[in-house]
Amino acid sequence: MKVSELGEFGLIARLAEAFARSGQPSSLVIGIGDDTAAWRASGVQLVTTDTLIEGTHFSLSHVSWRDIGWNALTVNVSDIAAMGGIPEQALLTLALPPQTEVADVDELLAGMLEASNEYGTAIVGGDIVGCDTTMVTVTLIGQALVDDRGEPLLMTRSGAQAGDAIAVTGYLGDSAGGLRILLGESAGSTEAADYLKWAHLHHEPPLAVGQMAAQEGVRAAIDISDGLLQDLGHVCQASGLGAIVHAQEIPISPALRQAFPQDALALACGGGEDYQLLLAAPPEVIEHVQDKADVPIAVIGEMMTDRQHRIRLLGKDGHELAPPPAGWDHLRGTAWRR
Amino acid sequence: MKVSELGEFGLIARLAEAFARSGQPSSLVIGIGDDTAAWRASGVQLVTTDTLIEGTHFSLSHVSWRDIGWNALTVNVSDIAAMGGIPEQALLTLALPPQTEVADVDELLAGMLEASNEYGTAIVGGDIVGCDTTMVTVTLIGQALVDDRGEPLLMTRSGAQAGDAIAVTGYLGDSAGGLRILLGESAGSTEAADYLKWAHLHHEPPLAVGQMAAQEGVRAAIDISDGLLQDLGHVCQASGLGAIVHAQEIPISPALRQAFPQDALALACGGGEDYQLLLAAPPEVIEHVQDKADVPIAVIGEMMTDRQHRIRLLGKDGHELAPPPAGWDHLRGTAWRR
Repeated sequence: MKVSELGEFGLIARLAEAFARSGQPSSLVIGIGDDTAAWRASGVQLVTTDTLIEGTHFSLSHVSWRDIGWNALTVNVSDIAAMGGIPEQALLTLALPPQTEVADVDELLAGMLEASNEYGTAIVGGDIVGCDTTMVTVTLIGQALVDDRGEPLLMTRSGAQAGDAIAVTGYLGDSAGGLRILLGESAGSTEAADYLKWAHLHHEPPLAVGQMAAQEGVRAAIDISDGLLQDLGHVCQASGLGAIVHAQEIPISPALRQAFPQDALALACGGGEDYQLLLAAPPEVIEHVQDKADVPIAVIGEMMTDRQHRIRLLGKDGHELAPPPAGWDHLRGTAWRR
Repeated sequence: MKVSELGEFGLIARLAEAFARSGQPSSLVIGIGDDTAAWRASGVQLVTTDTLIEGTHFSLSHVSWRDIGWNALTVNVSDIAAMGGIPEQALLTLALPPQTEVADVDELLAGMLEASNEYGTAIVGGDIVGCDTTMVTVTLIGQALVDDRGEPLLMTRSGAQAGDAIAVTGYLGDSAGGLRILLGESAGSTEAADYLKWAHLHHEPPLAVGQMAAQEGVRAAIDISDGLLQDLGHVCQASGLGAIVHAQEIPISPALRQAFPQDALALACGGGEDYQLLLAAPPEVIEHVQDKADVPIAVIGEMMTDRQHRIRLLGKDGHELAPPPAGWDHLRGTAWRR
């Protein structure tokens, strides 16, 4: 059955039913099906929104509808994680060509529900529109953690200080490597290729690490979605600082090194869609975070005074390396259309 | 200059600058430019989202970029108005073809800012993506009014009772009439045509009436965006009731009667995008609301017990009229593509 046969209101009823099955938090006053959703709130609320577009952010010939649903939520969870917050209410806007199969939409919903259960969110509303291009927008609302006195514990792009250690979670560049393989490059073992493709197709932001870091006193963070150096650049700009990054400290997976021995560093520096966290805080705070985290966290450099907000990438012997290609700009060119 | 020359981050900087000029509320903790926006909140929060797509919701050959910006916000204000709430934080997602003129985006922002000032909201974030189709999504967050004890005063689709009077604000069908004229029909005087076209191109939801109605004790409402009978049908379904509507009480403007004497009633019953409010409450409550409102409010019928949730449209002599064509379904067919 096509979505045009089911109709807008049939599809909304289907969504409402699927999402109601997933359980709703006690704070929810009104869920899907009225003019607005409503919930009880206090403290500092957070909101972020991200859109995935076919042909730009994903290709239906590579990614499953289930993963689109999963990722549409998790790319937003990543932004809340970068603030150290708790994600709560999600809205889903689906732009669908009329010939879209209802079964595919069901898969997308299933993936979104899986992610919603994983990260503890509730899907409370949205919008459905007909369109030539498949497009999935999620808006995610949450709240900040608070300290003993009720003050919000937020990590921001502008919170870095000169002398802060710069740390990142997980491995970088895997998603960009996976994209290359999906686009046809043959590289590495089958095992490495499968690992890299999965990294591109399925985002798992380290939400618990973000929350723990905020509680441990980290005041500066960003999620790495546009490429390490570009996202670190945003922190430098917002904090009015520069940074030094030690190339050999950047965490690169064995699979990426094996598949792209020449380009692994460039992919780790400039590749997009890692959905890892970059944290900046005094070295002793970062050490606490490393001790407590259940994922690897690597110190890759330090923030420093620099009126021009430069990032210098240093090689093993301390000499400056040429900057790898820039990250992602959605209006200039995009991965799937390159 | 094209947006592809300015780039995503150039455009975000331009948005942030434009929106910062508009002033920001004291509750705002973090505005545009970080991973999330953040604000202090308490009580019951509301959220709604609506998307406008070129070719479906608007045609760039008829509507100005400024009106697109205005409407993208006000269609969401309409949903908050229908709950009786206070709109506060808005997020803007722009999907733009790379060849879009930056000057056009500036106009869109100006229109959105005008609406934002008019309705007292702050634009706190969003997303920008490249796409073949121009698409504007706004998510609007707000809060419910509260009574003396701090309990939320919400109007919902499910809040109607048998015996409630059904009332609507303003005139219905003008927007649908204006659409016909924009699509090439020649009808009525130039003055009437201009009035109807404006009704289609520029939405002004009666926010203050919604808030006043909630305070006066109205507990059921919906905004009329998909056509009177379809939206009343949502109230009937959600409230488990039926309704009688007296055709001669439906408010129809002189301009619509002049331009479409044969079809005025059908346009008022089934036309979309009126962005007026439908209220259901005991007759004496509706009378108070009528007395206090600064816009005309017409009583058009009453809610009644009916397990099948039917709406019966009655003519002047009390006989039942055949139902006019149904309202709007975004996946089955749309105005601009008809």
